[in-house]
Amino acid sequence: MSNLNNISIILVRPQMGENIGAAVRVMKNFELSDLRIVDPRDGWPNEKAYALSAGAKDLLDKVKIFQSTEDAIADLDKAYATTARKRGMIKPITFPETLGKEISESEETQKIGILFGQENNGLDNDDISNCNAILTIPIGKKYSSLNLAQSVAIVCYELFKNSTQKGANLNLSEKKAIEEKNASKKEVLDFIKYLEQKMDAENFYSVPEKKDTMMVNIKNIFTRHDFTKQEISTLRGIFKGKES
Amino acid sequence: MSNLNNISIILVRPQMGENIGAAVRVMKNFELSDLRIVDPRDGWPNEKAYALSAGAKDLLDKVKIFQSTEDAIADLDKAYATTARKRGMIKPITFPETLGKEISESEETQKIGILFGQENNGLDNDDISNCNAILTIPIGKKYSSLNLAQSVAIVCYELFKNSTQKGANLNLSEKKAIEEKNASKKEVLDFIKYLEQKMDAENFYSVPEKKDTMMVNIKNIFTRHDFTKQEISTLRGIFKGKES
Repeated sequence: MSNLNNISIILVRPQMGENIGAAVRVMKNFELSDLRIVDPRDGWPNEKAYALSAGAKDLLDKVKIFQSTEDAIADLDKAYATTARKRGMIKPITFPETLGKEISESEETQKIGILFGQENNGLDNDDISNCNAILTIPIGKKYSSLNLAQSVAIVCYELFKNSTQKGANLNLSEKKAIEEKNASKKEVLDFIKYLEQKMDAENFYSVPEKKDTMMVNIKNIFTRHDFTKQEISTLRGIFKGKES
Repeated sequence: MSNLNNISIILVRPQMGENIGAAVRVMKNFELSDLRIVDPRDGWPNEKAYALSAGAKDLLDKVKIFQSTEDAIADLDKAYATTARKRGMIKPITFPETLGKEISESEETQKIGILFGQENNGLDNDDISNCNAILTIPIGKKYSSLNLAQSVAIVCYELFKNSTQKGANLNLSEKKAIEEKNASKKEVLDFIKYLEQKMDAENFYSVPEKKDTMMVNIKNIFTRHDFTKQEISTLRGIFKGKES
């Protein structure tokens, strides 16, 4: 079974239906099938998306719509933020080709989401802070404004190109063992939410404006690394305070 | 000087201005600049091409229009026909990645043209027969109808990616940047010690015997991953409690 089935393309607040349609078409070209959309500007369903999707209307019929990025990635193991800008964030940076190779060579069955931001502004810092790593498409410096559907095309192409062999002869029990160890995206996000509530309850911030930056920093810490279920549970215990 | 200046993208009898515009935009993204069009269906200039070209209007202004494929490639050293179908032709077949590598490693300065056919039918046998080789984009078998501008995007992406080595270099320098900011072993251990004291002071453990196991778990978490100086400082801040 191809690892491509475990990859979700996630369009965050896309503006133009045309780009959604072109994106889903190229997903199907490269054998990806799970499209998720966070808060599409023009609502859903979208006529122009259907018009541009050509032979990939079946994928649009089963698109999943979410209200927030957190909801869209909750059931995944890993998320990548496609963005050119580094914005001073300490996140690992990878490239479509590298990611394609890693996924094809991986012996784990991980559910992976790749986020693409809206046409004019891309992903915001909060979206990025929810991701494990930044995915950067190598591009010229003089004119680096890549169309949304073209970005999706290039990423899907690299994933497909590198997916061919591998993955078939995996030891299933090993796969399962690894799966059970790592915390899911949802467990990590829940932990972060818990931490946020706790800090709010303790009136942690002397200056309320600092909260946003602090939360982005915290999210970055706990999404940048893979934590096991046990580790997240231990961390939660520490933050909870005195053992009961 | 980059070899990319010697590569021409040649659209043969394109039908939709939108695709011409999207193609030229992505050419500019990947630092190609010479667009040639053979017999565009809707004549030239084309409003929709301009509308979709975004920041690449300058390239459209200097597009070269030809009446035949032969004319369009006459001044070039080599031409490649982008097509999925082999049509029983005895031609060498190459792939965008392979071509990108060949061009970037070549010590000759050759003028190269890459032909893309019209939206519904692709290149015809006569077009292909004018070319030195067939260029095939790896694609899924179930739905292999790739949009024209997407084909151009993927080919230009591979040419650019391989022309620069940028990917690899950036990767290294980024890695280094992250490494340099990493917290020292001492900083991490100090942080863990701080955490231990804090938990002792709060009488964290209902059962003292649990402390050892807990501390081992905590050390494992914070030594298993590389944390940056900033991250350790943020974590320390959280554990310290209310900001002062």
